[in-house]
Amino acid sequence: MTAPEAIRWDGERLQLLDQRRLPHEVGYLDIDTIDDAVEAIRTLAVRGAPAIGIAAAYALVVAMRRRAPRHASRERFLQDLEAFAARLNAARPTAVNLAWATSRICRRARGQPTLEALADEAGTIHREDVEICCAIGRHGAELIAPGCTVLTHCNAGALAVSTLGTATAPLYLRHQDGVPFRVLVDETRPLLQGARLTAWELSAAGIDVTLICDNAAAAMMAAGEVDLVLVGTDRVTRNGDVVNKIGTLNLAVLCRHFGIPFYVACPSSTYDANTASGADVTIEERDPQEVLGAAAARVPARNPAFDVTPAALVTGIVTERGIATPPLAENLARLFG
Amino acid sequence: MTAPEAIRWDGERLQLLDQRRLPHEVGYLDIDTIDDAVEAIRTLAVRGAPAIGIAAAYALVVAMRRRAPRHASRERFLQDLEAFAARLNAARPTAVNLAWATSRICRRARGQPTLEALADEAGTIHREDVEICCAIGRHGAELIAPGCTVLTHCNAGALAVSTLGTATAPLYLRHQDGVPFRVLVDETRPLLQGARLTAWELSAAGIDVTLICDNAAAAMMAAGEVDLVLVGTDRVTRNGDVVNKIGTLNLAVLCRHFGIPFYVACPSSTYDANTASGADVTIEERDPQEVLGAAAARVPARNPAFDVTPAALVTGIVTERGIATPPLAENLARLFG
Repeated sequence: MTAPEAIRWDGERLQLLDQRRLPHEVGYLDIDTIDDAVEAIRTLAVRGAPAIGIAAAYALVVAMRRRAPRHASRERFLQDLEAFAARLNAARPTAVNLAWATSRICRRARGQPTLEALADEAGTIHREDVEICCAIGRHGAELIAPGCTVLTHCNAGALAVSTLGTATAPLYLRHQDGVPFRVLVDETRPLLQGARLTAWELSAAGIDVTLICDNAAAAMMAAGEVDLVLVGTDRVTRNGDVVNKIGTLNLAVLCRHFGIPFYVACPSSTYDANTASGADVTIEERDPQEVLGAAAARVPARNPAFDVTPAALVTGIVTERGIATPPLAENLARLFG
Repeated sequence: MTAPEAIRWDGERLQLLDQRRLPHEVGYLDIDTIDDAVEAIRTLAVRGAPAIGIAAAYALVVAMRRRAPRHASRERFLQDLEAFAARLNAARPTAVNLAWATSRICRRARGQPTLEALADEAGTIHREDVEICCAIGRHGAELIAPGCTVLTHCNAGALAVSTLGTATAPLYLRHQDGVPFRVLVDETRPLLQGARLTAWELSAAGIDVTLICDNAAAAMMAAGEVDLVLVGTDRVTRNGDVVNKIGTLNLAVLCRHFGIPFYVACPSSTYDANTASGADVTIEERDPQEVLGAAAARVPARNPAFDVTPAALVTGIVTERGIATPPLAENLARLFG
């Protein structure tokens, strides 16, 4: 058994697995309009940097098709497309893949303003993502020594991307090869993507998974129970800073303290050469109710959804073109240049 | 408004605030037997190192009174008392106060094997605790500079102790003096004592409180939003190692990385000169269901309730006799010697 597909596209209909209801219920949302897509992205029905890029690309095809009667001219077509893209980009500010995917669709449309070209480009983005995850998996697999324990945070798995995921791709491939290892999964408050999604998809694949509270990471490391931390990312900036789910910086600092390697899986679509450092990235602050829900205390709450791990704390970045090691700015530019 | 008393004793009846239901419901449990007390301690109806010591002391009085007809001889009296004490001690292994309080009651009984002596000793333990918290508050208040932000973890507040709490005592006293400051409260998964208890009791007292996920601590520190971390403890060993709620070690490592002072409030009853270091302390591993509950994933989970912060990461230990600074082993021995 493996995890269900996060994104279903049959050339006509776009359906997104509603990840808010996992693992209790497996159900799909029909995406017929840009509003549907914005809502699904904003509320994390679809989440994970690569997946929201792919979903946005298909959503543009669907939305443009409904507007086809209006598109008498090239100008009208591009105008509508760019307005849709802007609305999608605003749904979540932190992950770079969203804007990367919509701008790729828009660029293609400027050369070829047809529905067929948009659908083709969206399909290409999706197909490339599958191949990229496989390549990340092959490069990252060398990090997973037999008998080791890998700690991961949030979900950079098949549900966040496609087929193999990014941070999980090395795990899936090593498991297929029969290499024994263990995965500790941080539950990842406030939205529990680790507990609900990663623990679920890895254990469904037969991988040895143990769930821990985010608070237990240091104790596990101090006890010598963690050999490697491997996480995904929502954006790697030019200097190698890693923007990822809140709590990632905690792990990176703990790794440095305990002498544990800290690796980040990052497809080229998540590398943002146009942004100098993490300080230049807008960190989404989500509804405090996500934190307060459990407590019912009537107090204010802060709910930053991401944090920035400085490049200096990163052992290496696993990409589809190999593993970039420090100096990251230089080596990422070389790999992705 | 302030938090309700965690422990009610009128000389006859023992009632414990059922902290499992806070902040949704304020209700008290009647403790009539050792079984009642063991259940309340084990399930965290009463929690916090000093509070479980006080509750155990009163529980011995209550349980011994019900057995009074059997206590024809001094031997019979002491035998029953020690059997009760052993059952209470086993309810939770990590906090030292439980064994400290029951052994204090037993020692008194060996000199004076009467119900009156037990009740007197239990009352003394409780009264002393109130005074100790005030003294910790006075010594710790100097750490709370006007305008600063203090981050705390779990609940070492009035609900865990009495009147002022330990880690919260400096906060209550500074607030009474009109000094402005802000408190960030970690929600403290898995049982959310920060969200349910600390945020609730501090905000009820009018203190400026903001709740965060445990995962957000590093981001807050990186943003310069934390001036000081102040936590309680379940046991400080002879070498100054601090055993406290799971996640405390994470904070101590983060503090070291970001250059933020890390202080621990510790009454003498929580200092354990008989245990050399944190490595010698039994760390309670609680029901995995406490972690899995939120996820409903069918995977194994680990649920260590505490971790050990090595003395080397501790800036100072705030006691009722002053603040011990490094070298902690030496300075704690001097303060408590």
